[in-house]
Amino acid sequence: MIEPGFTLWFTGLPCAGKSTLASGMGSALVRRGYRAETLDGDEIRANLSRGLGFSREDRDTNIRRIGFIAHLLSRNGVIAIAAAVSPYRATREEVRQKHEAPFIEVFVDCPLEELVRRDCKGLYARALSGDISNFTGVSDPYEPPISPDVHLHTDAETVEESLARVLEALERRKLIGR
Amino acid sequence: MIEPGFTLWFTGLPCAGKSTLASGMGSALVRRGYRAETLDGDEIRANLSRGLGFSREDRDTNIRRIGFIAHLLSRNGVIAIAAAVSPYRATREEVRQKHEAPFIEVFVDCPLEELVRRDCKGLYARALSGDISNFTGVSDPYEPPISPDVHLHTDAETVEESLARVLEALERRKLIGR
Repeated sequence: MIEPGFTLWFTGLPCAGKSTLASGMGSALVRRGYRAETLDGDEIRANLSRGLGFSREDRDTNIRRIGFIAHLLSRNGVIAIAAAVSPYRATREEVRQKHEAPFIEVFVDCPLEELVRRDCKGLYARALSGDISNFTGVSDPYEPPISPDVHLHTDAETVEESLARVLEALERRKLIGR
Repeated sequence: MIEPGFTLWFTGLPCAGKSTLASGMGSALVRRGYRAETLDGDEIRANLSRGLGFSREDRDTNIRRIGFIAHLLSRNGVIAIAAAVSPYRATREEVRQKHEAPFIEVFVDCPLEELVRRDCKGLYARALSGDISNFTGVSDPYEPPISPDVHLHTDAETVEESLARVLEALERRKLIGR
């Protein structure tokens, strides 16, 4: 029996909570007995995209590669969980189109002011001072999803609440059991 | 129930029969009810490694990327089938070491004279005339496996015979059922 896989794609600004949520979802799904593989944007860059920068073209290439791996995993019954800024709407849409398995877009939304306040890795301060260029949300565009499958508000929800909302959305779509 | 995945890695000179055998194995395993994904070196180059050339460094980078995907698939219960010249012993060994699932190396062996005679894509003639450089077996090295898990001789066996030998090796290792 080959259970159907799917891809869960977390998109959002740096520090919005994508990696934390992706890793939490990975654990939750494995606990429920599913095969799940977390594809973290930064880790994939190191393994598949060394040498790529942050121009639109290089970002798109990195996203297409993550999308290609998610496609291969999901069509083989694995739940692929991607966490990547993936700022461009057209590129996310292209990845969705190339999928044979369901593709669930999760918008990890958090207002810029809150992200600057948190500044989890000190990157926003450096971006705002001009020390880092091409920083999404500050000096590079982010195109939010128009109708994401799940829209999280990580400034107002706890991690547990966000995870519960994603699980509930997957159950509602019958992608996982209750 | 999560059945264990593994990686089947076909290595050998250009035109030795790697892609044919990989694709035949993919069909045979899917017919038996397994999840199997064929990773063809040329196709992966197009999706993950555009811009890479045929220097040792670029070849190794491409092989590491195929190896990374095979690792992700195999540890999630999928049979990953790679077909890639993968000329360097140390790089194949590195890929094997990074695997969590079993890694089965299949040496697709065929004497150079026979490959030149066949010249499936007209590439050997161009390599021998100097029109193509860095061509494995002619102007670039190939380091054959010292103790491959399966050693095929595609000059002396039919495709069906080679496939039967690989299936038999997988059965003997209890990686697939009889």
